[in-house]
Amino acid sequence: MQLKRADIVTAAIALLDAEGLDGLTMRKLGARLGVQAGAIYWHFKDKEALLGAMADRMIGESADPPLAPGTWDAQLTEYATRARRALLAHRDGARVMAGTYVQEQNTVHAGEMGVRILTDAGYPLDRAGWVIFSLMYYVLGYTIEEQAQAQAGDWEDRGIEDTALLSAMSDVVRSDPDERFAYGLGLFMDGVRLRLAEALS
Amino acid sequence: MQLKRADIVTAAIALLDAEGLDGLTMRKLGARLGVQAGAIYWHFKDKEALLGAMADRMIGESADPPLAPGTWDAQLTEYATRARRALLAHRDGARVMAGTYVQEQNTVHAGEMGVRILTDAGYPLDRAGWVIFSLMYYVLGYTIEEQAQAQAGDWEDRGIEDTALLSAMSDVVRSDPDERFAYGLGLFMDGVRLRLAEALS
Repeated sequence: MQLKRADIVTAAIALLDAEGLDGLTMRKLGARLGVQAGAIYWHFKDKEALLGAMADRMIGESADPPLAPGTWDAQLTEYATRARRALLAHRDGARVMAGTYVQEQNTVHAGEMGVRILTDAGYPLDRAGWVIFSLMYYVLGYTIEEQAQAQAGDWEDRGIEDTALLSAMSDVVRSDPDERFAYGLGLFMDGVRLRLAEALS
Repeated sequence: MQLKRADIVTAAIALLDAEGLDGLTMRKLGARLGVQAGAIYWHFKDKEALLGAMADRMIGESADPPLAPGTWDAQLTEYATRARRALLAHRDGARVMAGTYVQEQNTVHAGEMGVRILTDAGYPLDRAGWVIFSLMYYVLGYTIEEQAQAQAGDWEDRGIEDTALLSAMSDVVRSDPDERFAYGLGLFMDGVRLRLAEALS
């Protein structure tokens, strides 16, 4: 039976979900697929390339189904929320994305989808891509920390003397992750809204 | 001679700069320090803990000297810009930060510094931490991609049919990284400015 590229990616994501990024080795992946590791290298020149394809698959999961019709800000919020959900859906998903600079099909089409939300609303094309990339940096940084937070303890005993401030810092870590994600996203959206109003005026 | 924790972190960052994150092994680090790897584990229970201390050192580098007096937005912009610079100063610096959930001294104090910029301006304490964390997610996501971009090619031949859009996407990757960082940061700052105005009204 011929080993297909897509099947390797599927198996690699299953291995990731089971063992995390540190457990994802070409040897274990080969064992899971019943092939020698060399057969995988025929499709992916190195682990980096495999991680890129895995990240691209995850992004693809976020683009389906198409966004519901709506205002640009509702759509863009949904777009960012889906991207977060797609990374959270897999163990260490954000770290997989972080190590790669993906330019594969799904990622490019997701980028295109984001840019179109903005340009359809009247945002200048030459800055719409900058906005979408910035938005993705926030999503990536947020989900990286969200997935790392299992290791987090409290902020007590960290040398902060101001108890009101200490309590506020602790509350950040304890807050509802959906709500906190939406808050940061809202700051960003406010900025986009302002620039859009300027562009349209 | 006794092996000090701070010296291990210094050597680990030197090894990182020389070989990148994938080359940072406890064995190589031991060789660099002239000790067995076991001596390192006496100070750091695992590689994760060492990476956390390395990230904390980098953050510490960004907090010195203290920020110049100025408006809250000038200070916060400088704060974010320094954080980016600190991660860029070391090979794979952003990826080191990404894998950890740091709560060590320098990181906590940097967080405190950020929160104070906002609360001194009148931002509500219970949301100032959320703002600072969001800002750091953007910085982290941005620098991760910036350091990965060495692998980047162009966006040509990626299945985008709209040539204006294709050209705009390519321009994102080719744009000046300082300018693009400032643009995304500016969107975010606009949002903070709006919320601050609401809080003060």
